[in-house]
Amino acid sequence: MTYCLAIKVRNGLVFGSDSRSHAGMDHLSVYSKMFTFGIEGQRVFAVLASGNLATTQAVISQIEVDINRNAATNLHAVESTTEAAEYIGGLSLAQQKKHRSDAPTGEKFDNSASFIFGGQIAGRKPRIFLIYPEGNFIAATTGTPYLQIGEMKYGKPVLDRIITQETGLEEAALTAMVSMDSTMRSNATVGPPIEVLIYAKERLKFDRHFIFNEDNPYLMELKSAWDQKIKEAFSELTRFNWQRAEAQANHG
Amino acid sequence: MTYCLAIKVRNGLVFGSDSRSHAGMDHLSVYSKMFTFGIEGQRVFAVLASGNLATTQAVISQIEVDINRNAATNLHAVESTTEAAEYIGGLSLAQQKKHRSDAPTGEKFDNSASFIFGGQIAGRKPRIFLIYPEGNFIAATTGTPYLQIGEMKYGKPVLDRIITQETGLEEAALTAMVSMDSTMRSNATVGPPIEVLIYAKERLKFDRHFIFNEDNPYLMELKSAWDQKIKEAFSELTRFNWQRAEAQANHG
Repeated sequence: MTYCLAIKVRNGLVFGSDSRSHAGMDHLSVYSKMFTFGIEGQRVFAVLASGNLATTQAVISQIEVDINRNAATNLHAVESTTEAAEYIGGLSLAQQKKHRSDAPTGEKFDNSASFIFGGQIAGRKPRIFLIYPEGNFIAATTGTPYLQIGEMKYGKPVLDRIITQETGLEEAALTAMVSMDSTMRSNATVGPPIEVLIYAKERLKFDRHFIFNEDNPYLMELKSAWDQKIKEAFSELTRFNWQRAEAQANHG
Repeated sequence: MTYCLAIKVRNGLVFGSDSRSHAGMDHLSVYSKMFTFGIEGQRVFAVLASGNLATTQAVISQIEVDINRNAATNLHAVESTTEAAEYIGGLSLAQQKKHRSDAPTGEKFDNSASFIFGGQIAGRKPRIFLIYPEGNFIAATTGTPYLQIGEMKYGKPVLDRIITQETGLEEAALTAMVSMDSTMRSNATVGPPIEVLIYAKERLKFDRHFIFNEDNPYLMELKSAWDQKIKEAFSELTRFNWQRAEAQANHG
């Protein structure tokens, strides 16, 4: 499984991804799920991938091939991030169809994949999109300033509580890491290294890409600090007076 | 959707359930998902239900019918909680099969249901079980002292952090409420009233059953207090020094 997310705040974008890939529990391995493209000063794009590894690798390599061959549609030529999202959705769908029809066994076979795509083209606004296995996509909005793919539920509550349009970029990056930590705590198929990419609006350059390995001191500290703080937060909650409630129920 | 959970600690059991039922977003309604059975002083059982409402209602009513008719297997006659779990699994499977084969349209139709079952028979230990749609079941153990059905992922991280075998009963009940709150915050198909049942080992009586309506002052306070405390916990985390990490990456 995978957990990737992107956050769009007023000052820019944050991307986060885990790196655990598995085909069954016996076949755990490490693959980066974060890919970047673009031309410094003109356009920058990040792609986060979840789902069948053969499909996602084929899509990423087709994106590179199209750029190198200067194909009619490629990430160096698209006029908008929406056009780029549509293009990636098309590549993904084509790739899935190709192998679905080739399946020699006739067995049920899921090679679907989802992507988060985001970035900025000079003169336009930064945007992030979630591209579904069917190739269609949605954009993050002010009301929903983040997008997730993969094993997303465990890490959603903290995003819902912390992230708003006004959250600072580094705060958003920390929220992404806490969201990732909650996911890793509850699901063994999501794991480090954790990659975090911070993009300040109008910078048109991806120079803040961080990789946290399992033994990274900050990641280890965050894990234990967040655990401790949740326990403290819980211990500080006003206790419900169960006895009084019972008395009221019995006499009220 | 539904979210139900049961927690087994050294001193007893806690059951929690939401009450939102829906068949599509236009058909939200309130149904209790917590049912209790037994004979005071001899045996007490709770059943929490998730899934197709027709299936779960039919199972609950069959449990009652079997008790009233003094059927060969019924909850007043079973010799162990394991036998009871097996019995409920059988009722559930029979009910699902009955209507699956009757489906007049031939359309794909999901009437599956899951249950949490737990309680105590005099002279035996309290236990909790998760009964799958297939009728088979698992018991909670010391290592995994809680069970969940329905929309379970959002509320899992807090359980993983707080609950151990040694957690007190009322603390476990509060954890169940916080877990429920996290789920409601992130998923609109889980909603109040919230029911909480606290069972102290050897009591053989369910006299601590609490219902928190949407406008319950404690539930409202808990919701805002937990939100506030998570935000505080987040604000107190040591910040990662992104600048220094960049400097190190560039020069190290």
